[in-house]
Amino acid sequence: MSKEYVVAVVGATGAVGSRMITMLEESSLPIKSIKLLATIRSAGKVLQFKGQDITVEETTEQSFDGVDIALFSAGGSVSAKFAPYAVKSGAVVVDNTSHFRMNTDVPLVVPEVNAHALDAHNGIIACPNCSTIQMMVALEPVRQAFGLKRIIVSTYQAVSGAGAKAIAETEREIQEVVNDKKDPKDVIAEILPSGGDKKHYPIAFNALPQIDVFTENDYTYEEMKMTNETKKIMEDPAIAVSATCVRIPVILAHSESIYIETEKVAPIAEVKAAIANFPGAVLEDDPSQQVYPQAVNAAGKRETFVGRIRKDLDAETGIHMWVVSDNLLKGAAWNSVQIAETLHERGLVHATTELKFDLL
Amino acid sequence: MSKEYVVAVVGATGAVGSRMITMLEESSLPIKSIKLLATIRSAGKVLQFKGQDITVEETTEQSFDGVDIALFSAGGSVSAKFAPYAVKSGAVVVDNTSHFRMNTDVPLVVPEVNAHALDAHNGIIACPNCSTIQMMVALEPVRQAFGLKRIIVSTYQAVSGAGAKAIAETEREIQEVVNDKKDPKDVIAEILPSGGDKKHYPIAFNALPQIDVFTENDYTYEEMKMTNETKKIMEDPAIAVSATCVRIPVILAHSESIYIETEKVAPIAEVKAAIANFPGAVLEDDPSQQVYPQAVNAAGKRETFVGRIRKDLDAETGIHMWVVSDNLLKGAAWNSVQIAETLHERGLVHATTELKFDLL
Repeated sequence: MSKEYVVAVVGATGAVGSRMITMLEESSLPIKSIKLLATIRSAGKVLQFKGQDITVEETTEQSFDGVDIALFSAGGSVSAKFAPYAVKSGAVVVDNTSHFRMNTDVPLVVPEVNAHALDAHNGIIACPNCSTIQMMVALEPVRQAFGLKRIIVSTYQAVSGAGAKAIAETEREIQEVVNDKKDPKDVIAEILPSGGDKKHYPIAFNALPQIDVFTENDYTYEEMKMTNETKKIMEDPAIAVSATCVRIPVILAHSESIYIETEKVAPIAEVKAAIANFPGAVLEDDPSQQVYPQAVNAAGKRETFVGRIRKDLDAETGIHMWVVSDNLLKGAAWNSVQIAETLHERGLVHATTELKFDLL
Repeated sequence: MSKEYVVAVVGATGAVGSRMITMLEESSLPIKSIKLLATIRSAGKVLQFKGQDITVEETTEQSFDGVDIALFSAGGSVSAKFAPYAVKSGAVVVDNTSHFRMNTDVPLVVPEVNAHALDAHNGIIACPNCSTIQMMVALEPVRQAFGLKRIIVSTYQAVSGAGAKAIAETEREIQEVVNDKKDPKDVIAEILPSGGDKKHYPIAFNALPQIDVFTENDYTYEEMKMTNETKKIMEDPAIAVSATCVRIPVILAHSESIYIETEKVAPIAEVKAAIANFPGAVLEDDPSQQVYPQAVNAAGKRETFVGRIRKDLDAETGIHMWVVSDNLLKGAAWNSVQIAETLHERGLVHATTELKFDLL
């Protein structure tokens, strides 16, 4: 009988964690048992896995004894602290936070794009940022066929990317405007645009051009993630990427307006065919029938939807497109579980001999 | 005593028309009397102008006898039919619809940018599309200082741009999702994305990459308006402009993520100074204090707010910015009344001798 895995989910009670559990329930991964971990505040809660009650436990340095695969989605500081202990205990970690993404010892993986990078793993594999993942699924088929020189992207991101509290804040704000007739600028915000920043602004009936905090170059961290992660995943530091990341009052699914310049001139029919044939990508593109991707339709689905593909009006190698995907599924939970499935398929679920990560 | 004008507002009961009345009340224009015109359906309604009751009348070919200035905002077909009669009656028309914008006999004017174009008017002046106007206010100071080669813009447009019925539809849809717990994809839409198109989609918790109907090149009319109107207003057909126009669940104020390439390398501090010194533009740009333009703050204001100004990470002459303005004020009612004020200041409110427009 082939190996069955003990799988741990760290951050099991969060917006992404709960979807990781669902993705594992529906996964082809042979699972012997599941361990649900969170902070001490959530310990004792009872969640379901395939109809069985599982009690949430507090994450500790010892939580990973006997665990084969650990999926982390509880914030960067939790991953920084506990992922190395999980590796030391013999587990393979799939980390959904930004903490290890740019570490040269850590593969950053979108399975449809660069599964081969898993082969050299050292115990931790990073799942890219949600806004990067869907862009990679849409652009990799174009890159393979025509080369990719530059990307300019403007995002329309859902509030669920900022967690369950941001969803609740958005719903409360909208109710105050719609039901209590408050002026949108007068509702009180406590989380968005970024829980870790000083000021908070309403998202109801607004568009906030800030996701995560600002870096020294006046781009936000979210924007720099799209730049740096793209170069790492596509293994090409020469690709020019500049992003403007914007939060809008949508609960689920990120939309992206993407402009690219290819190396070779790319006929639009061939671009559409390449995307339609790429795993994980779905072409939704028929202006004559008003067919294009929409957030409300992408919510709950694992695919990345691509449409509005058209030539730039001037640049010979310029192409515009509209890319939509569920930020909690392909953008987080599904991409993480898909990495675990790919590790299994490639025989890469094994303990690491040399520990390359600091035990804090 | 200097001349006082009889001013007509065509489409007085609409979302833009009602704001035109407010802008006229607050205007420096010497107004003798006001005439409020609409369809026969709205005739008989009583509206206020500076505390006086004014009864709305049906628009007819004879409505413009004695009128000096006629502001039109009742749809392209109403302008096509009645604006030439207004000119024939001796009025100067400021038309807020797209009908006459690309007509070579019609100046297309953003007063801060190209007021000089008014001098050659033939009785009709067109007010540009809302999404174009705010982009012109933000970019003209940069063009003047450094030249402008190309624009790539992705918009985040408010539903009020589609009229009062679209606002009501949006509010109903949001209530169905928030209060009645409907899935956003299951709410019934009847207007958006475009009242004149075949299919209608929910805007609540969604982003719709279609504004107006599609043209033959797979861009929408809204997108092509941004391209064609920019070239006409800036009097430079060589400027490359490609747009992606997107509707989001915001009631008031359009936001735009704009990428430009200048002719000369433009130091960011000088770009910011040029925008800050330009009439009608307000610089809101301090990442260290999380200061950037927001739709909820721009609503109700006449200015165009500009922030998030930063160098492209790769292109030497590339600059990104975030531009927000009230689409019903600077994007429509205020820009129209501002054109009327400028006509007055330049002594251009006069009857036209040669009628250049067809009487339908």
